[in-house]
Amino acid sequence: MEAIMRPIGAIRLEGQRAYVDVLPQYLPALRELEEYSHLHLLWWFDGCDTPDSRATLQVNTPHPGSPENLGVFATRTPHRPNPIALDTAAILWVDHRRGRICISRTDARDGTPVMDIKPYARGADCIPEAVGPPWSMQ
Amino acid sequence: MEAIMRPIGAIRLEGQRAYVDVLPQYLPALRELEEYSHLHLLWWFDGCDTPDSRATLQVNTPHPGSPENLGVFATRTPHRPNPIALDTAAILWVDHRRGRICISRTDARDGTPVMDIKPYARGADCIPEAVGPPWSMQ
Repeated sequence: MEAIMRPIGAIRLEGQRAYVDVLPQYLPALRELEEYSHLHLLWWFDGCDTPDSRATLQVNTPHPGSPENLGVFATRTPHRPNPIALDTAAILWVDHRRGRICISRTDARDGTPVMDIKPYARGADCIPEAVGPPWSMQ
Repeated sequence: MEAIMRPIGAIRLEGQRAYVDVLPQYLPALRELEEYSHLHLLWWFDGCDTPDSRATLQVNTPHPGSPENLGVFATRTPHRPNPIALDTAAILWVDHRRGRICISRTDARDGTPVMDIKPYARGADCIPEAVGPPWSMQ
């Protein structure tokens, strides 16, 4: 089985600002998004969509005190079987005419294809009691 | 541009329990995952991978007091251009021999293809100040 995704927009970095520019055909899909303070962005690690990167199952980590190798499902590395990224950011504003969302931050580079936008739902997505290993510096 | 994903495993629902069963070739990718208390699951709304569902840009919502139509990027509806789902759950245990993760919850049905597993990083993923509209019942 293959799941095929096509970009719904792209990340734009201009000066100190980060934006999501949504393709014109998807403008109606943004309706009411500004009612939320934060969003999840799903984007494609397009620089890592190679057979070698997708075959990577463990990575060396730079965290002091961590095990030498971590499984890629225990890290946020771009080297993973399906190179999809998850970012969380604040929504600063939404321009429905241009299809532009100004966001507080992203790990993506300029031009990165964006696959989905979801509202951040605090009740389900915010887990204050979540803990990680000491070397994760959480 | 097309981004192609292939399942790394599947959701299994048995009685009151929910599991992620990872395909044998991806077992090494689970290493150290149990160091985290929670994970993000990215899975495929395989029942909604149809041209009609993917062309849906607005949906009617059941929330009292909400606008009649919301853009799909302002909801978690399965009807969206790229039908990818995001779940957050607690990790109850990881069986590295079988490639099975016991999780606290999921919205997915039994047999749903899973595309990625990421550790929940409280510092980035937990946003206590996030707010949504009144009708979202956050």
